Amino acid sequence: MGDSEKGKGSYLDSLLNLDSLRKSLIRQEDTIIFSLIERSKYPINSPLYNDTGPGDLSSSLLEFFIKESEGLQAKVGRYASPEENAFFPNNLPSSLLDPPNHAPVLHPPAAAVNINEKILNLYLRTLLPLISVEGDDGNYAVTAASDLQCLQTLSRRIHLGKFVAEVKFRDAPEDYIPAIRAKDREALMKLLTFQKVEEKIIKRVEKKAMIFGQEVELDENDNKGKCKVDPCVVSRLYGEWVIPLTKFVEVEYLLRRLD
Amino acid sequence: MGDSEKGKGSYLDSLLNLDSLRKSLIRQEDTIIFSLIERSKYPINSPLYNDTGPGDLSSSLLEFFIKESEGLQAKVGRYASPEENAFFPNNLPSSLLDPPNHAPVLHPPAAAVNINEKILNLYLRTLLPLISVEGDDGNYAVTAASDLQCLQTLSRRIHLGKFVAEVKFRDAPEDYIPAIRAKDREALMKLLTFQKVEEKIIKRVEKKAMIFGQEVELDENDNKGKCKVDPCVVSRLYGEWVIPLTKFVEVEYLLRRLD
Repeated sequence: MGDSEKGKGSYLDSLLNLDSLRKSLIRQEDTIIFSLIERSKYPINSPLYNDTGPGDLSSSLLEFFIKESEGLQAKVGRYASPEENAFFPNNLPSSLLDPPNHAPVLHPPAAAVNINEKILNLYLRTLLPLISVEGDDGNYAVTAASDLQCLQTLSRRIHLGKFVAEVKFRDAPEDYIPAIRAKDREALMKLLTFQKVEEKIIKRVEKKAMIFGQEVELDENDNKGKCKVDPCVVSRLYGEWVIPLTKFVEVEYLLRRLD
Repeated sequence: MGDSEKGKGSYLDSLLNLDSLRKSLIRQEDTIIFSLIERSKYPINSPLYNDTGPGDLSSSLLEFFIKESEGLQAKVGRYASPEENAFFPNNLPSSLLDPPNHAPVLHPPAAAVNINEKILNLYLRTLLPLISVEGDDGNYAVTAASDLQCLQTLSRRIHLGKFVAEVKFRDAPEDYIPAIRAKDREALMKLLTFQKVEEKIIKRVEKKAMIFGQEVELDENDNKGKCKVDPCVVSRLYGEWVIPLTKFVEVEYLLRRLD
């Protein structure tokens, strides 16, 4: 195994260490907020989401763009990483790169949990109208690229729940095995819920949205209070969707952990 | 002309208004800094840049990724916008969308100025080693997507010089025509240089890099001073490259303005 292979292996191993996993989740808050701020630059641009796109397209222009982008990203190896889950996972082309030669870090029968359909619906129906204004400026390509960025970044964060679940399971299998055997979702959800930690996350992302979304001027006193994305939308996003969906992924993963 | 066409036309017209153009340039500072902070999450990942990629690829994996991404983005109309310039503009597929029906906002013979080759070289050889650490974590697909984001965002900012030049030319053609006729680059550069404005931009982007790159903690006093991308790298990027290259684009545009 060369240095390069070691680098890749140790990166994945780090995701099974609670401290690095926590750092990664916190770092991804910044990424998510940056991507929402960027999407808010453009109006809704609704022709991108019409059921039938232009010309012969049988899907919306956005769906076409996501599928084709995922196809290209599959070729450069994106979905060889257990962190990544495609929105349209069927018929993805194979990677040009050699398959990674590290042992799987997640339990294989559970690794396939994918709730991207939920995430896509939530994004289009609920989140998008909260972060972008009405209107159509014709910038569909950059808007679609920005949507994809938001979606992939939310999906990565939420599906990291698989790693969280794996780490917690390895740490105390005896706590989880009875609930898994009984298929007791409620008991699992209870084991995975830490109210105080969740409240801290929600407060932190609100603060981040305030800091990263401000208009920065050289004069200290200018533009205080203006934010590109409403910080309350970001705290609501985490409180109502990101955290619950991450825990949903954790439960789905654990339910398959003994298969 | 429907409401939608009016929206698109007025968006482009806004780029010929000095005040909206200035706002767009300032807003793009945030976008550039966000993209650099995101790229700094990954190590260099040098196999992405090897002259010959994996398998039968005759180019680097990054070049393959950029070309294919640009092909897809061309299909959803990216390069129909006068703000956008491809890194590999030859043989791009045509757009699925109807061509925009607004009058060209830039002077057509000058609109083709494209210095993306310079930008790509600068990014790979100089900027990348300043924002990412040595190493290889195997995350090539997300790294390539992040590189593309940085490149497109820098390219858009620098090529907005065409709009800046057009606005300045329309505002006072009599100032520019003699220098354009004499092909006097130096005189044009002098007309386009405002030292005080440039210094303000450089200070502002440094401040933005400090604010957007900080580790945000709920406790006010934590982690002050740590930044994800060195603010001096961002001020240097603007002072040595972004501003001079934007002015280079302005001069190239003006030299073709009477063709």
